[in-house]
Amino acid sequence: ARTGLPEAVFCAGKTPAQIDAIFASAVAGGHRLLMTRLDAGRHAALAGETRATLDYDALSATAIHGGVAPARPGRIAIVTGGLADLPAATEALRTLAFCGIDAELVADVGVAGLWRLLERIEEIREADVVIAVAGMEGAIFSVLAGLVAAPIIALPVSVGTGVSAGGRLALESALGSCAPGLVAVNIDNGFGAAQAAIRMLGRTAAGV
Amino acid sequence: ARTGLPEAVFCAGKTPAQIDAIFASAVAGGHRLLMTRLDAGRHAALAGETRATLDYDALSATAIHGGVAPARPGRIAIVTGGLADLPAATEALRTLAFCGIDAELVADVGVAGLWRLLERIEEIREADVVIAVAGMEGAIFSVLAGLVAAPIIALPVSVGTGVSAGGRLALESALGSCAPGLVAVNIDNGFGAAQAAIRMLGRTAAGV
Amino acid sequence: ARTGLPEAVFCAGKTPAQIDAIFASAVAGGHRLLMTRLDAGRHAALAGETRATLDYDALSATAIHGGVAPARPGRIAIVTGGLADLPAATEALRTLAFCGIDAELVADVGVAGLWRLLERIEEIREADVVIAVAGMEGAIFSVLAGLVAAPIIALPVSVGTGVSAGGRLALESALGSCAPGLVAVNIDNGFGAAQAAIRMLGRTAAGV
Amino acid sequence: ARTGLPEAVFCAGKTPAQIDAIFASAVAGGHRLLMTRLDAGRHAALAGETRATLDYDALSATAIHGGVAPARPGRIAIVTGGLADLPAATEALRTLAFCGIDAELVADVGVAGLWRLLERIEEIREADVVIAVAGMEGAIFSVLAGLVAAPIIALPVSVGTGVSAGGRLALESALGSCAPGLVAVNIDNGFGAAQAAIRMLGRTAAGV
Amino acid sequence: ARTGLPEAVFCAGKTPAQIDAIFASAVAGGHRLLMTRLDAGRHAALAGETRATLDYDALSATAIHGGVAPARPGRIAIVTGGLADLPAATEALRTLAFCGIDAELVADVGVAGLWRLLERIEEIREADVVIAVAGMEGAIFSVLAGLVAAPIIALPVSVGTGVSAGGRLALESALGSCAPGLVAVNIDNGFGAAQAAIRMLGRTAAGV
Amino acid sequence: ARTGLPEAVFCAGKTPAQIDAIFASAVAGGHRLLMTRLDAGRHAALAGETRATLDYDALSATAIHGGVAPARPGRIAIVTGGLADLPAATEALRTLAFCGIDAELVADVGVAGLWRLLERIEEIREADVVIAVAGMEGAIFSVLAGLVAAPIIALPVSVGTGVSAGGRLALESALGSCAPGLVAVNIDNGFGAAQAAIRMLGRTAAGV
Amino acid sequence: ARTGLPEAVFCAGKTPAQIDAIFASAVAGGHRLLMTRLDAGRHAALAGETRATLDYDALSATAIHGGVAPARPGRIAIVTGGLADLPAATEALRTLAFCGIDAELVADVGVAGLWRLLERIEEIREADVVIAVAGMEGAIFSVLAGLVAAPIIALPVSVGTGVSAGGRLALESALGSCAPGLVAVNIDNGFGAAQAAIRMLGRTAAGV
Amino acid sequence: ARTGLPEAVFCAGKTPAQIDAIFASAVAGGHRLLMTRLDAGRHAALAGETRATLDYDALSATAIHGGVAPARPGRIAIVTGGLADLPAATEALRTLAFCGIDAELVADVGVAGLWRLLERIEEIREADVVIAVAGMEGAIFSVLAGLVAAPIIALPVSVGTGVSAGGRLALESALGSCAPGLVAVNIDNGFGAAQAAIRMLGRTAAGV
Ligand SMILES: Nc1ncnc2c1ncn2[C@@H]1O[C@H](COP(=O)(O)O)[C@@H](O)[C@H]1O
Ligand SMILES: Nc1ncnc2c1ncn2[C@@H]1O[C@H](COP(=O)(O)O)[C@@H](O)[C@H]1O
Ligand SMILES: Nc1ncnc2c1ncn2[C@@H]1O[C@H](COP(=O)(O)O)[C@@H](O)[C@H]1O
Ligand SMILES: Nc1ncnc2c1ncn2[C@@H]1O[C@H](COP(=O)(O)O)[C@@H](O)[C@H]1O
Ligand SMILES: [Mg+2]
Ligand SMILES: [Mg+2]
Ligand SMILES: [Mg+2]
Ligand SMILES: [Mg+2]
Ligand SMILES: [Mg+2]
Ligand SMILES: [Mg+2]
Ligand SMILES: [Mg+2]
Ligand SMILES: [Mg+2]
Repeated sequence: ARTGLPEAVFCAGKTPAQIDAIFASAVAGGHRLLMTRLDAGRHAALAGETRATLDYDALSATAIHGGVAPARPGRIAIVTGGLADLPAATEALRTLAFCGIDAELVADVGVAGLWRLLERIEEIREADVVIAVAGMEGAIFSVLAGLVAAPIIALPVSVGTGVSAGGRLALESALGSCAPGLVAVNIDNGFGAAQAAIRMLGRTAAGV
Repeated sequence: ARTGLPEAVFCAGKTPAQIDAIFASAVAGGHRLLMTRLDAGRHAALAGETRATLDYDALSATAIHGGVAPARPGRIAIVTGGLADLPAATEALRTLAFCGIDAELVADVGVAGLWRLLERIEEIREADVVIAVAGMEGAIFSVLAGLVAAPIIALPVSVGTGVSAGGRLALESALGSCAPGLVAVNIDNGFGAAQAAIRMLGRTAAGV
Repeated sequence: ARTGLPEAVFCAGKTPAQIDAIFASAVAGGHRLLMTRLDAGRHAALAGETRATLDYDALSATAIHGGVAPARPGRIAIVTGGLADLPAATEALRTLAFCGIDAELVADVGVAGLWRLLERIEEIREADVVIAVAGMEGAIFSVLAGLVAAPIIALPVSVGTGVSAGGRLALESALGSCAPGLVAVNIDNGFGAAQAAIRMLGRTAAGV
Repeated sequence: ARTGLPEAVFCAGKTPAQIDAIFASAVAGGHRLLMTRLDAGRHAALAGETRATLDYDALSATAIHGGVAPARPGRIAIVTGGLADLPAATEALRTLAFCGIDAELVADVGVAGLWRLLERIEEIREADVVIAVAGMEGAIFSVLAGLVAAPIIALPVSVGTGVSAGGRLALESALGSCAPGLVAVNIDNGFGAAQAAIRMLGRTAAGV
Repeated sequence: ARTGLPEAVFCAGKTPAQIDAIFASAVAGGHRLLMTRLDAGRHAALAGETRATLDYDALSATAIHGGVAPARPGRIAIVTGGLADLPAATEALRTLAFCGIDAELVADVGVAGLWRLLERIEEIREADVVIAVAGMEGAIFSVLAGLVAAPIIALPVSVGTGVSAGGRLALESALGSCAPGLVAVNIDNGFGAAQAAIRMLGRTAAGV
Repeated sequence: ARTGLPEAVFCAGKTPAQIDAIFASAVAGGHRLLMTRLDAGRHAALAGETRATLDYDALSATAIHGGVAPARPGRIAIVTGGLADLPAATEALRTLAFCGIDAELVADVGVAGLWRLLERIEEIREADVVIAVAGMEGAIFSVLAGLVAAPIIALPVSVGTGVSAGGRLALESALGSCAPGLVAVNIDNGFGAAQAAIRMLGRTAAGV
Repeated sequence: ARTGLPEAVFCAGKTPAQIDAIFASAVAGGHRLLMTRLDAGRHAALAGETRATLDYDALSATAIHGGVAPARPGRIAIVTGGLADLPAATEALRTLAFCGIDAELVADVGVAGLWRLLERIEEIREADVVIAVAGMEGAIFSVLAGLVAAPIIALPVSVGTGVSAGGRLALESALGSCAPGLVAVNIDNGFGAAQAAIRMLGRTAAGV
Repeated sequence: ARTGLPEAVFCAGKTPAQIDAIFASAVAGGHRLLMTRLDAGRHAALAGETRATLDYDALSATAIHGGVAPARPGRIAIVTGGLADLPAATEALRTLAFCGIDAELVADVGVAGLWRLLERIEEIREADVVIAVAGMEGAIFSVLAGLVAAPIIALPVSVGTGVSAGGRLALESALGSCAPGLVAVNIDNGFGAAQAAIRMLGRTAAGV
């Protein structure tokens, strides 16, 4: 896009034929390509030549064509409350990788066992930007925001049951937090969290 | 009530004349009386003889007639995230006092400054029952439930703005928490939290 | 956990391979294990060696490895409105059994036929803690809270149609009840209701 | 109206001048008149000649001009959970009186103290139609519907706090009830509950 | 039930084996039986001996064992807005038939073509009780309530798209109607609408 | 605006001083001016020179400075369900008048008394565009859309109680209607309904 | 219908046999027929003779029998934000074609890349009526309404994730827009948007 | 706070006496102080000595004691849709000023008149971080995100009517936007938006 941010093909709701066509057009134009929300079933239904050159990751449901960009400066920490947060966390990770940005994953440090988070807090503090991933009640967003001075992007996920099903509770916990200066993206939007992080790094990388 | 729990006159929506009449009838019957949701305006409008014998507390909007019950065993900790949680916390405190139960208030230890809570955690761990009071995103409920083994009653309060206005976010954070064995009462229901604590202490006090 | 409460593997959303791996790691570590939300299809897809030693219960979708804990003192009554409430009720029952706690099930005593509940009320009154399970409009929570002095944990379930579908109506009936000192856990959270009961019993069992 | 049901002037949102004009036009036409939602402030602001002939009741915020209709057969019981339900209950009572129908009020028999309701159940069973009035969680609707065979009209009221504020919880408890054959009207709609009762009595009164 | 109303087995969420067992127990006890929410797939999966004596209707997903009751007096009109309303309308019709009550179906007279309703209004006016069935915006409830003096039970159905999906809009249109004396039951609750109608007819039938 | 549509000063939330300033600037520029949501209190607080030249209407809370535009072709019918719909209906009427367009008001023809609407339907059919105004359950939108072929703009208003309070029910009734080709504007948005009508007339007036 | 608008068979929720019967009846009566919400699976299951004469379009899930109507004057522009908006856009297009009205599709001009829309704005300005189709946050509705003077019908679609899932956000963005004179139809209601456009064109076509 | 972010006294819901006490304690400690949500009425009720040294701004309801911090590097643009967005925009501006950061206000450039925004886009592109402020449907968030590469913090405000009242629509438009990498803070949270911007600038200012 004209903003310099990566674009991606959002594959949910597209037929394999449509995705094959978009892929062919990218190949023809010599473009690299990031595909998101490409579940395993739809991936398996793509044409053989499409699948041949795709680097596919089932956990995040993403595929990359044309390799990742040259490494750019900037350290991102992706912190998750539990294992169920990994699909969205990995969507963010892969989007950053596609753009040449390295991210460290600090997984399964939810606040039900606070010491797990406290043990790794120094590591998290070294990042330029933190992406925090959580479902259920999202208490980790507030705890992190009280402990870390870098920008924190809350990435709420649709992991939960009863009142926390669907991710809205985690989203609102980030927005309504008593902790200072949290920002949030849409539920399960790992791609958007990565884009926001790139906007923040952009200035940093360029030395402003 | 037949369950042995305290009853109270819920004064919101009652006219001063109605409250005076209920008071007179309690005096006539020789009963002690707890009044809740009696705001300062309505208190000032009560008859002089009513006000004369009432122990009134404006912060919690409660009034007690006839003194508190003899001291009963049981230690309750009432933990609050911020100063704005004090009205509901004090409603719980006064209800417990009315029943002869001592409670310790640990105020203003919200998770935006996690060390404040961690500094007082041993004190909290000595309680038989913890009443945790928070508005906004209620992250303190999850943090406490991961650190304390006693029963924890989440008392969400209608303190917040935007998505956290009205207390529902704090309530759902307690219910949807990833932390083990939290229970919740209705928003701003300090009286109900105290009643629940008394149910839990009852067995304790009696030695089962 | 550090609180001494049982932990469980929440199997919804985990693949059979992931569950097999968690199981193998528990076996290797010599730990007992409780699995919840393990539906029959997923259970059938586990490795033969996993299934071989699991005590599986399809109604509650729970599995136990390594047997139950030695019997602990404490009497729990689990009271249900209808037959459809049994899955969540049994999740609570099995969690308690895993921890060595005996619970009595008083099933199908919903208020549409009030005499069914009244006939068994003395039995319920003997419990140290009551877990009340209901879907639809959850009227049984209020009726019980007016009749029993012990702690009552309302466990709302996602049984209902139209306005009562999903369990939120039952949950809010517990929270908004006119009856004294009810506490609630999340919808369908039998595991959490059991954890809360264990917190309450803990003091009791230890004699405080 | 052409259906033979009473009409009423809904005064909320009308200026005193508008109400005076409607009144004058009814007087000129020789019609009797029922006014609802006429709060004390607005009543006091009506013209002297309007107030002179009005039978005004502040509790229900209703006024009657021209007296009540000749007595018609039919017994209605109006059952309320608490004292706060009286405004809506009395709106129903006055609407019925305006139409010549006698109704008995059975007040303050909510299920938090179940015995209060059971003591009066035979009296309630003698009615042709029962109007049940409750706020908060509305558990009384289900209990009554399991005990009485006559038509039961649930009249939910906007009495409650937190999750039960506004009356929607009581309304949905009536609609989602596990008890058989309950019907509901809108929140606080005492006038509508009376109209529905009149529709039901109409056939009865006429002997069908 | 002790109220004399019919009971039914609600089959949604029950396994074929559970339904077979309930059926066998009814046969053993010599009881007639009404089953609701028994979809064609589940019906086909019942034991041969169960299906042999069941009068099954796929449209309403109901089954009757033991025949219908002797005819009782009382005329019911069931009025529907469109063809999609027939499943719930027929659930009501079959419940009434099970109880010996005849009902006339006036189908597909929605207000988008008002003349269709007006052509049949005299026929509808002859009923003792009207059950009005509609999804989408439920405008027919208000139109009928302005034209007919008998009790009108609004039966909202989950037919609609976008803002009208799920039936809540139709339900609230009935409750919030400007027309006099409408009552409503839960979404898709044809069984409950019939029960309510039987309560209303009961007095009628008995001549009061 | 560049679209040729009228602009207006939305006065809710503006101080009298701010409104005076906007007015002065319009006078200085020689512009005509339409003010909306200018309640009587705020109007009274404007500067004397502002009020001196304003044509103020309290019912619609609108004020016009500089007179109305020359008459343009086009017939608009504004149809309301009840008297409480007049403020929004008049906001639309005044906006049209400001633009030189004549509109006829057909008031108080709600469907609870269907004959009132049917008596005036031919008159309504003569309009080029119909603006239908209703609160509560908004059944009139569907009835009109089945009887009139011209464009119908549903203007839902915040008139109602309980489930119909706030206007959302009326809005959704218009959007979810079974009747063909209805369009809707925001709740209470008489100004927007008039703008939409002007867009529709524009082509007409120009002869296309 | 008596309004002269097209009618259509809404096939969602109808069995193939029911659709075949409706088709046969239309053929017998010599009527043309438009079918909507006829997905590919249901289309394939129709009788051979039904399918033989149907002009079926899978993208919009519509089928036409009997050809389109003679061309009528009037230019419609259908503007979409993205490719995922095409099903609803094409439902509108096919409904218009069925009625003899030509529409131009301006696809994939969403505001994330504003220049795409600005490049085609003159083309859009030539239309008599604009149907704007968008999901997610629907920002295109406001942008278009500020740039085009013709009537704009917002057609929100159920394309989105997290907070924008289901189409309600796009719908409310249209209704709550700061831009002048937008009107909206129900989510995904391409058929209704076309009907509304025909109402608006009707006058135009007839020269008023 | 330990994160180095500014703290502020949130004055909504605090009595003048409480605010005076907090002020006195800050003065005693020699701290600078930022107060937010201090409306004019409450400000006027503060003690004379408090008011004497406060730099109070009524539009943003903020007060500063002790002057602003020394200038720090970093350019912030605060872009608003309309005049009603100024209170929240100014809360952000004053918070930044308190921290020594200069921000430029680009006001009243909402998308209903797109050219106003396009005329100033180059100026906005020069900022390190953009805070975009809008109520109603918040379309400006998406338009900006498509035109500017810097981090964009959406600050939704509670300006709107009907479906856009309260600010939730604007909030969700930011979160659900089709445009890349937007982040959002809570409704009306100008203080939080400034804090988030400071987190982002922090790295920049330090040169990373
Ligand atoms: N602060 C409170 N919050 C919730 N319920 C209360 C409170 N105070 C009293 N109640 C309950 O409200 C009921 C009293 O209602 P009333 O008879 O109207 O005074 C009793 O059941 C009390 O136990
Ligand atoms: N049935 C259940 N309902 C709610 N929470 C559960 C349940 N079973 C396990 N948990 C909790 O879910 C978490 C396990 O998540 P995971 O690490 O993804 O297996 C632990 O905190 C458990 O205590
Ligand atoms: N179609 C129906 N809609 C609502 N309730 C029903 C229906 N059919 C049966 N019931 C009720 O559901 C209950 C049966 O539930 P269960 O105990 O789970 O078999 C009884 O109270 C029935 O009266
Ligand atoms: N795609 C559609 N979206 C909304 N309404 C439709 C659609 N197609 C047909 N309709 C309307 O649905 C009704 C037909 O319903 P039915 O009689 O069940 O086929 C008619 O009023 C049609 O105008
Ligand atoms: Mg989590
Ligand atoms: Mg707090
Ligand atoms: Mg139940
Ligand atoms: Mg009540
Ligand atoms: Mg219908
Ligand atoms: Mg109306
Ligand atoms: Mg779109
Ligand atoms: Mg704005």
